[in-house]
Amino acid sequence: MRMTIGDFLIRRLKEVGITEIIGVPGDFNLNWLEQIEAADGIRFVGATNELNAAYAADGYSRSRGVSCLLTTYGVGELSALNGLAGAACEHIPLISIAGSPPLFATEKRWLLHHTLADGNFGNMLESVRPFAAVADRITPMNAVDEIDSAIRAALREKRPVHLQLPSDISHLEITVPDAPLDTSLEPSDPAQLDAVLDALLEEFSAAKNPVLLVDQDAQRHGFLTLFEQLVEKTHLPYALMSSGKALLSEQHPLFLGVYNGAASWPGVQEAVEGADLLFTCTPRFIEVNSGSFSQSISEEHTIDLGDQHVNIHGTHYVGLDTTQVLREFIDRVPTATGEMPAPADNVPEADPFEPHAEAELTHARLWPQLKEFLREGDTIITEAGTSNIGLSAQRMPANVTYINSAIWGSIGYTLPALMGSQMAAPEKRHLLFIGDGSFQLTVQELSTILREQQTPIVFLLNNAGYTIERYILGMDRQYNDIANWKYSELPAVFAANPSMDSYSVRTEGELAEALAAIERSDKSDTGAFVELHLDPKDAPAGLKAFGPMTAEFDYGPRGPRNP
Amino acid sequence: MRMTIGDFLIRRLKEVGITEIIGVPGDFNLNWLEQIEAADGIRFVGATNELNAAYAADGYSRSRGVSCLLTTYGVGELSALNGLAGAACEHIPLISIAGSPPLFATEKRWLLHHTLADGNFGNMLESVRPFAAVADRITPMNAVDEIDSAIRAALREKRPVHLQLPSDISHLEITVPDAPLDTSLEPSDPAQLDAVLDALLEEFSAAKNPVLLVDQDAQRHGFLTLFEQLVEKTHLPYALMSSGKALLSEQHPLFLGVYNGAASWPGVQEAVEGADLLFTCTPRFIEVNSGSFSQSISEEHTIDLGDQHVNIHGTHYVGLDTTQVLREFIDRVPTATGEMPAPADNVPEADPFEPHAEAELTHARLWPQLKEFLREGDTIITEAGTSNIGLSAQRMPANVTYINSAIWGSIGYTLPALMGSQMAAPEKRHLLFIGDGSFQLTVQELSTILREQQTPIVFLLNNAGYTIERYILGMDRQYNDIANWKYSELPAVFAANPSMDSYSVRTEGELAEALAAIERSDKSDTGAFVELHLDPKDAPAGLKAFGPMTAEFDYGPRGPRNP
Repeated sequence: MRMTIGDFLIRRLKEVGITEIIGVPGDFNLNWLEQIEAADGIRFVGATNELNAAYAADGYSRSRGVSCLLTTYGVGELSALNGLAGAACEHIPLISIAGSPPLFATEKRWLLHHTLADGNFGNMLESVRPFAAVADRITPMNAVDEIDSAIRAALREKRPVHLQLPSDISHLEITVPDAPLDTSLEPSDPAQLDAVLDALLEEFSAAKNPVLLVDQDAQRHGFLTLFEQLVEKTHLPYALMSSGKALLSEQHPLFLGVYNGAASWPGVQEAVEGADLLFTCTPRFIEVNSGSFSQSISEEHTIDLGDQHVNIHGTHYVGLDTTQVLREFIDRVPTATGEMPAPADNVPEADPFEPHAEAELTHARLWPQLKEFLREGDTIITEAGTSNIGLSAQRMPANVTYINSAIWGSIGYTLPALMGSQMAAPEKRHLLFIGDGSFQLTVQELSTILREQQTPIVFLLNNAGYTIERYILGMDRQYNDIANWKYSELPAVFAANPSMDSYSVRTEGELAEALAAIERSDKSDTGAFVELHLDPKDAPAGLKAFGPMTAEFDYGPRGPRNP
Repeated sequence: MRMTIGDFLIRRLKEVGITEIIGVPGDFNLNWLEQIEAADGIRFVGATNELNAAYAADGYSRSRGVSCLLTTYGVGELSALNGLAGAACEHIPLISIAGSPPLFATEKRWLLHHTLADGNFGNMLESVRPFAAVADRITPMNAVDEIDSAIRAALREKRPVHLQLPSDISHLEITVPDAPLDTSLEPSDPAQLDAVLDALLEEFSAAKNPVLLVDQDAQRHGFLTLFEQLVEKTHLPYALMSSGKALLSEQHPLFLGVYNGAASWPGVQEAVEGADLLFTCTPRFIEVNSGSFSQSISEEHTIDLGDQHVNIHGTHYVGLDTTQVLREFIDRVPTATGEMPAPADNVPEADPFEPHAEAELTHARLWPQLKEFLREGDTIITEAGTSNIGLSAQRMPANVTYINSAIWGSIGYTLPALMGSQMAAPEKRHLLFIGDGSFQLTVQELSTILREQQTPIVFLLNNAGYTIERYILGMDRQYNDIANWKYSELPAVFAANPSMDSYSVRTEGELAEALAAIERSDKSDTGAFVELHLDPKDAPAGLKAFGPMTAEFDYGPRGPRNP
């Protein structure tokens, strides 16, 4: 059929489930925005800047599976680049479109605004390319190929892709396929599939104490439901990496706890490293999720599941759709006999929290208090730093979506990601835990949250600076201080009738009251913005251990240390 | 002598005149921050995010001649990249330092936070390289070469340079030169110098109506004082490009006006294009400063002055230090006989402005009213959009520093640039004119302005969206709307005792009162934040003409237009 390029792109985005395009308008994309405006079932949401828009698109993709970011040439796509790189790092499918200068001017190498005015129109793509599975410019000749293969690549590789859409071609008509985009994966090679299944069944039946270790790729590759089935059928115990927090239920009797090398929850290091058969899913051990590289995982005992490969003790079976492997393995593996074992007693389980009404907030007691406020099914977003370290030590309710920037660790990510995730999954209660240092980087996205009438519950930890960095170096240094804003006044500055109530909390009693008030209010109408005042030098126990280890690693034997 | 790498870098930065390093702390740069903390005569200023820090460093460089930006690996340097690209586009010397992972871990390709966790440590430099004259990683072996050649390149090429400083080496001692950094330029080749001077003197003596046309490179290459001498000695009339606004006095009798192709000030196109000898300084004609490419500059009548070349009607003299060429040319060119001519009558000169007390603000009358508030010696910063278009149509007082993003046009640039410029030139009165759409992108830098107790005068044009884009496309579209903030409350949210008074102004009378109050207050103690309420569809005349031309250019004959 015949269709304009812009309309075809919109059609494809809708076919993969995108109903909102997040971005910032610019003269090179206004014409495509006109086409979006005219389309049914999809709309544009303006963010306040491009990096925030990219973070929001990342958050949207975490809850919807894919997202679309719209920027303009040069100034916009480069501003968004750290967000794209974060999606590349965290394995998030994200379709990034940049409105670009008219194709005729590109071909003539004209000097234009938003370029270096040197006739070079390749430098933006060059800069984006290290962080995108595809980075290319659409033309009328290549439009169908580029759009279809880029979207498939984003979904298949779990990566961002970046396409420049020249401003003078989105209204041109081209011939496009009638059929919806086929995003199915190539099925496994039959011989490889047979071989790997035989090997898996043999290994599993011989194992005395197999364990499953889950990292974030398990979610990206669609393994989680299959793992749940496998666990139920075989009574396979599992641990989560901190970068795979809450991906499987932390309330299940077979949940061993969080594995983090020497900094694992009690008993978990022994269980994981002592397994005679360990299933992994392309885990990525960095300083932060390995107790500073103290993990000990030997290939000899390990079966690693990638999206397209299974590695059994060093033998790679390739050409696989591993979800197919898992489905057939689950079919054929014997059902466990006997009762489901009792819950492991090594998982931390605090007594019910009793607030001390006059006690000032401390990290030691804040996270246990906040934990009781969490509910099954919540989407919980934790910023790098005290928030993620504090909350990741807590056992999550079942069926929680836990979003953070586990590896990329870009501060400021979570506030815009909250906006995107809530847009993608408005039926979920959303909670954000963020420190003041991170909040300041991307604060203006609170405005979009309010403009969209979203009702999240935001906990803003005001501790007057970058506390995670104080514990690494410069405990009392000015460079770790930030300005002290009147945070709780911001919702009323950004919106005439804010969809969030503001609280400013200094004691456990005030926090208990605020939490009770939030519970009483109708969540469909009103969110909350809760400022928590904390001592700049207070920190969760995990951070107090992590700080000096990081200084040791980063600065080496001659480097500086906190006194 | 022996010195640590970090201390050597600090020493070199001080030698070229840098007294503030602007950036955001991160674990990979905290150790260098310790060294900065210990150094005399230089300090670190924390910005609220890295893009803002880069914009601020650009602003600092515009007023100081060079600046230093500090970020951290990956997340930080990529966030700053659009600011670096802007400096590359606008020809601004900027020394960008990114604290990077320990060298030993880089060499071992360890998986780390702030990387893609794939062992690749080249991708960040790859992404920065298209926008930096130098992009490299410091090691103990190359430190002196890399640091010295990068700083020299930044100053010589008027470009950003980017160096990664691994976190484990800044405290290592190396052998460094005793002498301060030699940043002098290579003198001209004698034969080329003689030849070009002869040619210049011959051309100039034969010319009947020579004209000088100044673009921003004239400032970057240090030509301005020389041009002033040339104009005084030879009575050479001059025009400024809009991208070279106010670089030479707009109050001088020989000032012809602003050249912008068919959109020039009255009579200027004829004067420039009719000159039988036109001096240019590597002008860059883009859509915005050429009346949509309506310039007509023939090489046949043109002598173009680059920093290292002079092009006389197509013959390139190279191997030159053009400042030396100009000095010797000025020495040898005959002094003009006769009186300095009377001022050109084609330069717009409004009658004294009489406010209509009850009249709502309009662009037609706002800029003439604001113009009367400007003073000799001011630093005037204008954001892309209505602000720059409105103010650039006005004749500036003498000796004004006019800062904008003339070619790169990245919205949001000016608020952080204001912070940086005011830090670099605190003795100057600073005024910023910025629209609400742009302001929202980088709003948090107002916090740093207040934290630093700066006292600029900020005019915030609240017109409920991206008015420049409304005139290009989507006049009534939601995608050009933004949330309406209570802007004038922001100084009090960001600081307990703000160093700026707030005003919210709707009429010409209220604006007159606010301007009078600002004049009365002591500028050394108090700045001002003046919210100006304007109709979303009102615009300066220049924008009303520019919008449809841009739509024509961007979207081509089949593309959409405003009704």
